[in-house]
This record gives sequence, structure tokens and C-alpha cells, in this order.
Amino acid sequence: MNGMCIATYRCFDEKADFHKRALSIAVGLTVGSWTDLPEARKAEMEKHLGKVLSVEVHEPAGGERYADIRIAYPDINFSRDIPALLVTIFGKLSMDGKIKLIDIDVSEQFQSAFPGPKFGLPGVRELLGVYDRPLLMSIFKSVIGHDISNLREQFYKQALGGVDLIKDDEILFENPLTPLEKRVETCMEAARQASEETGQKLLYAVNITGPTSRLAQQARKAIAAGANAILLNVLSYGYDVLHELSTDPSITVPIAVHPAMGGAYYQSPHYGIGASVLFGKLMRLAGADLVLFPSPYGSVIMPKEENLAVKDVLLSELGGMRTSFPVPSAGIHPGLVPLILRDFGQDVVVNAGGGIHGHPMGTAAGGKAFRQAIDAVLAGQTLEEAAQQAGNEPLKAAIDAWGIRHS
Amino acid sequence: MNGMCIATYRCFDEKADFHKRALSIAVGLTVGSWTDLPEARKAEMEKHLGKVLSVEVHEPAGGERYADIRIAYPDINFSRDIPALLVTIFGKLSMDGKIKLIDIDVSEQFQSAFPGPKFGLPGVRELLGVYDRPLLMSIFKSVIGHDISNLREQFYKQALGGVDLIKDDEILFENPLTPLEKRVETCMEAARQASEETGQKLLYAVNITGPTSRLAQQARKAIAAGANAILLNVLSYGYDVLHELSTDPSITVPIAVHPAMGGAYYQSPHYGIGASVLFGKLMRLAGADLVLFPSPYGSVIMPKEENLAVKDVLLSELGGMRTSFPVPSAGIHPGLVPLILRDFGQDVVVNAGGGIHGHPMGTAAGGKAFRQAIDAVLAGQTLEEAAQQAGNEPLKAAIDAWGIRHS
Repeated sequence: MNGMCIATYRCFDEKADFHKRALSIAVGLTVGSWTDLPEARKAEMEKHLGKVLSVEVHEPAGGERYADIRIAYPDINFSRDIPALLVTIFGKLSMDGKIKLIDIDVSEQFQSAFPGPKFGLPGVRELLGVYDRPLLMSIFKSVIGHDISNLREQFYKQALGGVDLIKDDEILFENPLTPLEKRVETCMEAARQASEETGQKLLYAVNITGPTSRLAQQARKAIAAGANAILLNVLSYGYDVLHELSTDPSITVPIAVHPAMGGAYYQSPHYGIGASVLFGKLMRLAGADLVLFPSPYGSVIMPKEENLAVKDVLLSELGGMRTSFPVPSAGIHPGLVPLILRDFGQDVVVNAGGGIHGHPMGTAAGGKAFRQAIDAVLAGQTLEEAAQQAGNEPLKAAIDAWGIRHS
Repeated sequence: MNGMCIATYRCFDEKADFHKRALSIAVGLTVGSWTDLPEARKAEMEKHLGKVLSVEVHEPAGGERYADIRIAYPDINFSRDIPALLVTIFGKLSMDGKIKLIDIDVSEQFQSAFPGPKFGLPGVRELLGVYDRPLLMSIFKSVIGHDISNLREQFYKQALGGVDLIKDDEILFENPLTPLEKRVETCMEAARQASEETGQKLLYAVNITGPTSRLAQQARKAIAAGANAILLNVLSYGYDVLHELSTDPSITVPIAVHPAMGGAYYQSPHYGIGASVLFGKLMRLAGADLVLFPSPYGSVIMPKEENLAVKDVLLSELGGMRTSFPVPSAGIHPGLVPLILRDFGQDVVVNAGGGIHGHPMGTAAGGKAFRQAIDAVLAGQTLEEAAQQAGNEPLKAAIDAWGIRHS
């Protein structure tokens, strides 16, 4: 919509006049009052007034009565940054009863302040030189209390298994055992060593933590030490911090974002912010190259419909902005690969922690099992078939351990 | 607890073994695995291991089964900043089913990195020279689309009514009609003019907005233009941004924090973060001098029990840290003053928007009505009695318009 950002809310109420409610939101969050204004003043204020686009009331049998309300907010009312957008459309309103922000559709003008992902999905593929298959990411197993040589060993074994990306654990902060620069240097050296074996490239997403004003400096330090990707716990810092990092010309590597704290927003059906806004629209707008979010398959689950909505937002056309790599995470093992590829297609990062480190034949075999599962699915094989092939012992062992999920 | 920060969670589950769940959280969010570790390694890792302090299972008749689980996390695992604390105790966990973070109790060592409010409640009283009564704050009515002369007029009328603080609307961002410096200069001049009439001081909390990295600069600009307080939408930027502003020696004025976006966290009983953590502990730790939050009386409501829990955290002893002024807000009119003072005592800021601007005798009378209500309660009068006194016509008109709430 020209010059207006549109918010969609789901409001629950057994009796409310939702049309009246919608109007009071559109007026209350923009010009404040309307009907009292003199006519001459209305003409001037019109361009600041929120507009109700639609109100769809649902009264499901045996369920809660609710309405989906779409309201357009004039761009002229707020500055072109995510905090201003969110405070306008869901600041006060977030506290006003059972209401959840389920979609945001920003105007072209607003979006023009957001170049989006610097690398995005195509850029990450280019860095890795991998265009024809889903990527594989692995996460360190235990990191707290471990020293640099232990981390190096974990890193090397993961890399040997043929993963494309390795990410720090999101709870690894600056610490004396594995300080940032030392960790990067050591792990990147392990990456080079593994690369000689595997013949493939690898991105290491290093967790950037600490005071907000020093994050960019931390990122530059990591990059200077050799890091070729960074990880950020966006929701504990705010989307604008991601936006500032992703638009900083000195941050020359892709940014992977972790969903930590996200459950506080998206899990309730009645309150908060929907997953496709939280992990989809806002992350992409703010410039995330890779977006981790809970998968519908594993241990930390998100309903499948919401999950695919996140994917759709990350991969859809959005004013020419680069797409972001979806990384559905948590509880993933090789037996889930057919489902992941069926639901996400090739443009997905298969991400595993325990499903790699917990492999009966060890961590390197854990990575290999995933790569074999991916290759099998791309070749149109079932995992059962592939597991019988010579060389695919890692896949067979994984399936014996965790099984195959068919739906 | 020495060297450990304690989180309390409320988990809902009809069947779960909550003791097992607690143990898996304590291990999973710290050392990752425990039982598999060799004994020698356990000795080294012990200092990193989370500890389950208590598990209280509740099975209310006719209600949902839940448990309150307290877990202590060793400080050694995370850096001394709020993002690291939150990601550790509620990052991944926030996404793991029906679970709400309802309390945080930080260690002395962790807290030592947080000087807390620079002014706090006593400092704000000192700036105003008001020690013996609750303070009165008012909010601009409509701001979007209004020019500087309109804002000046609104400001002046509010100030004439005897309010102690005036805050910007949280949805007023940098804009061409009322740009920051011009707005501050104009309103502070109006404040001086009103002060000659009222003989009292006034703080104007100017909304600091825009890119994260420029907030401190914006605040300095506002201060240079004469601002004697600032307002921040903390939750759209992150607590660490507030912490950095409050510890910045060049920010020489009190910081009022707005609860915008807060409903996304605290409203659900099953998910998110409790109000006493969100508006209480974390705001005070991060250095908020005045904390706005929804009141249990007005239009945007919060259950009274939660409300008083926020107040208790803001006003309680906390390692010598200054207290923060509680500012229960939204839908407040003079007829609610007896309830507010009964529940909050004298150390509260009575905060009104419509209850001042909507006064039948005008904005200045709106402020006066509140001051008269406050004086009456402090003098042990009922509002009914006070309204009959000569000079108290504003109070009488307010009561005629909005009534008196007795409970």
C-alpha cells in the first residue's frame, strides 16, 4: 500500500464490537481523536489517520470468538526504523487484552530504508560454492566449561563430517576459557585442516555478545581473527541492532540469527507476535542472512503451519530484497531429512546438534549420515534404500538409532 | 545466592515429571550433559552446573497442573549483561512448551555490574524539591500531525495545572513538525512561564528515538536543548540499551521508561515473562528512574496482584541500589486517586492523559483536580468532602464527570 504500513491483528473477545474496536485502534494509535475535530482540521489530519482495511469476525463452533483486523498506518507518523514501527503498531496495543500481532506488510517507502540481507540465501550459497542441495549446519555440543582444545576437537570432527556451517552455541559468551579471538583462530585453523580432507568450504558463525554499543567492534574483531560468519541473539538486543550490524559496511560476513527468547512472543495463541513476523518479516527486513527457528519436527516444536509461514516470508519476493536462508532447528536427526526437504524444498539449512554429536559412530559420521540422507532424497531414493548402499554405514547407523519419520 | 543467578519458572503440564524437567533445564542450559561425564571431569565441571533449588507442584482442583521451578545458574557461565543473562536462563527455554519466567534473583556479583538508577526515586524528588506527596505526571493528548505551537499550548496548560512531570507520547518520533531540539526548547520555555504562575518545578521527559547507536547522541542533544528528563521505549530496543544510557555519564537527567510492547511478554499466563521481572527487576537493574506500567484501575489493565509485585520490586531494598518510581498508567482519573494511594502509598507517580485533558473545565483544571484529590487523601479527607470545599471546583467537576472508585 502506498505510504502506509499494514498491521494484522488477531483479537479475541466473546462480545466485542470488533468494527468499533478496529476504528478505535486506527484512530487511537495515530491522531488520537477524530470525531471531535473541526472539519477544517480533519482535512489537515487526514494524512496522519490510520485506516481500517478489514475486519473478519470468526465465531467457530465450540471455539473462541475472534476477529482478524487489518489496519494501515501512515508512514508519515513514524521514523523508518523497526522500533518506531513496532511501538506505533503494537506498543500500547500489546497490553490491551487478548490481541496478537500476526502480520506486518510494510510500504515500499518504509522498506526503502532496509537493504535487507547483505548476503542472503544466494550470497551464502556463493560463499560456499554450493548451489544444488540443501546446506547442513551443526552446533557445538557442550561448550560451557570446555577449553579451547576441546572446542577445537569438536569443531574438527563436525567439519570432517561435511557440514557447510558450524555455529557457536548461543549460550557461549565472552569467557576466559574460549575467548572470541582465540576461539576463531583455533576453529578456523581446524576448518582449514578439515577442508583438506573434505574438499569443501565451511562457514563458522561466531556468537557476538556483550554490550550493545560494542557488538560491531566485537564482530570486526572476530572477522579480523578469521571468522567468516557471525551469530546474533537478536531478540535480546532488538531488531535495530541487527539492522545496524547488517548495514555496517565493515561487517563483511553473513549474519545468522538465533531465535533465543522468541518463545516469549510467539507461543501464545492470544498474545504476542506471530512467528512469521518475529522470525520472518522482521528478521529479513533487519538483514538476517540465515534465520534459525524451532522446527515442527524436533524437540522444541512449532506448529507446521506457522513454520511454513516463516519459510514463505523468508523466501518470497519482497521488493527485490535478498531472501534469507530458513534454518528450522532443534531435535533434528537424519531420519527427518525427507520431511524437511518435502516441506522446505532445497532452499533450507538442515541444522543438527545431538543428531550429529550423538551418532553411534561419532561426530564425523554424524555429519556424513546427514549428507547421505540429503543425497538420497535428492536422488529420489528412500532412506531405507540408501542405508543399504556401501559407504552409507553412517546413514544406516543413524536410522537404526533414531528411525525414520514419514509424516 | 553466592555467585549464582536464580530464575523461577512456572511450567504447565498435565503429566510431566516436573522434577525431571527441572533437572534437564539445569543441566541443558549450563553444561549440556552431566550423567555421561567421567567422574574426574565432573569435578571440573561442577562449578558450571545449574542447580535445581526447588520444585513446587500444584494441582488445583478444576485448574491446570503446574509447577514453580527455581534454578540457580552459575555467574561464571555468562557475561555480566542482561542479554547474556536472559539468553542463558530463557533463550532456548522460552520456546519449550508452556513455560513463563516469573522471577529473577541476581547474585551480588552479577548485580555489581549494574549501578541501577542514576537518580531513582530519591533523585527525582530532589530535582523537583517535592518530598511529602505522590507526584503527578501528565501525557500529551494528541501529538501526531500537530505543530510546535499546538504542542506548546498543550504543554503550557498541563504545566499550569501543577503537574510535576510531563512526558512525550511514546509514538512521537523524530518528525518535521515537532523536531526534537525545537520541541524541547519550546516546551521548556513554556515550563518556565508556567513555573512563574505555579511556583513549582517540572520535568519534561522527551522521547528519545531512532537508530540504536544514535540514542545517546539524541539524548545529549535533547539535554543540550534544555531537556531535564528523557523517555525511552526500552522493550523495542532491549534492556542493555537502557543500561548503557543510564550508565553514560553524559546523560545527566532521569530516564522514564515506557512499557510499549510489554503486553507481548507479560499478558499470557502460560508464556513469556512476568510483569515483576519485565517492568520491575530488569528495568531497575538497567537503571530506569521512573517506570511506567499498566495500572489495575484504568483502561489498559493488569491484575492487581501483578501490579503490586512490580511496585514491590521497584521499591524494595536491592543491594543498596536506588529505588525506581512506579508510574501505574492508563485510564487514570482523579476519582481513582484514593485507590492508587492506598495501594502504592506516597511513593508513586499518578499519571494521567485523558483524565487531565478531558476535564470539563479544561486541561489546567484537569491537573488541579488531581492535585486536589492527592491533597485530600493526604489530609485524610474523602474526595466527596474535599469536592465541597471552596477552590476545589476542579475536583468537583472531575468527580461529577468520572465518579469515584472505592474498590
